[in-house]
Amino acid sequence: MIKSVGLSKIYRLLNHGPTILVSSSFNGKQNIMAAAWNMPLDFDPPKICVVIDKNTYTRELIEASGTFAINVPCVAQVDLVTKLGSYSGRELQGTDKFAENNLQTFAAKHIAAPLLAGCVAWLECKIIPEPHNQNTYDLFIAEVLAAYADERVFSDAHWHFEGHDELRTIHHVAGGAFFAAGAALTATL
Amino acid sequence: MIKSVGLSKIYRLLNHGPTILVSSSFNGKQNIMAAAWNMPLDFDPPKICVVIDKNTYTRELIEASGTFAINVPCVAQVDLVTKLGSYSGRELQGTDKFAENNLQTFAAKHIAAPLLAGCVAWLECKIIPEPHNQNTYDLFIAEVLAAYADERVFSDAHWHFEGHDELRTIHHVAGGAFFAAGAALTATL
Repeated sequence: MIKSVGLSKIYRLLNHGPTILVSSSFNGKQNIMAAAWNMPLDFDPPKICVVIDKNTYTRELIEASGTFAINVPCVAQVDLVTKLGSYSGRELQGTDKFAENNLQTFAAKHIAAPLLAGCVAWLECKIIPEPHNQNTYDLFIAEVLAAYADERVFSDAHWHFEGHDELRTIHHVAGGAFFAAGAALTATL
Repeated sequence: MIKSVGLSKIYRLLNHGPTILVSSSFNGKQNIMAAAWNMPLDFDPPKICVVIDKNTYTRELIEASGTFAINVPCVAQVDLVTKLGSYSGRELQGTDKFAENNLQTFAAKHIAAPLLAGCVAWLECKIIPEPHNQNTYDLFIAEVLAAYADERVFSDAHWHFEGHDELRTIHHVAGGAFFAAGAALTATL
């Protein structure tokens, strides 16, 4: 079951550094790409940062729409995430990455970007326009309007992956090499 | 043994989303704090982003010096990281967090901030002044001048934690709860 995450706890979906998929939609076109460079930026209202290269098709769609979705993928999707990060949706003629990869999606509430089924969390994001950051650093700042998580692995504002190794978040290093979120540790202070 | 990391590979030290310690020094004062909100921003010259709250003592020292170090801590340091993230060095009289916690450090090459022994990677950072980002979002952009890693777990530009569980990077969720970097996964494309 997918459940809504309270605004003040949304940062916890990204706090541990997962690689994400950014989905986008504008004027009937849609795309999805991988993005390792992301982080929370504020608690409430929740804000996030993500780096989206100038050359990407995603960049074109999110600047046109002003919105995008963050999808937090999991171990079961390592090959898919790597594939989605390895080519541009702009190259596709008469189709898109969703159709080409038989991806199941569901609708967001506040934005047009589709949410990818099989992920473990989703954030609906609205860009806070910062042209200098976007143009100089490919850096986008966005407010998170709503977020959801798979309650099998995220509930009561905490991740709990025990018994669900296929649903652990994935953390990209380079070239298709990732670490899964591993042992849970709690400081004993 | 600690070895230098080539400039174009430095992003890989942060790409998988570890929580970091930010160390700083100015005019004889020094401090160290935890920061989960960080990410790579560019490859070469390498740049990074980090969020440093206005109220922190670190903020005062890094704005005065224009530099800071990122220390990438590991499983063995979970309690220390949580402690260093739980109080301000500004409260201390006649001592600092390093002395109070008996921390061993070694010198950076390009900046004054001390590097914390026992971590698994270190990045020497010089702030690229962006007053709007700093004032509005507590967001700092920095160029990385040099970086080093413990070759037991990072060499040939890749992390390899097998056999060194105590040296795995740690990824904070909230309130002293972390995940260790877990199983290594490689996409089969």
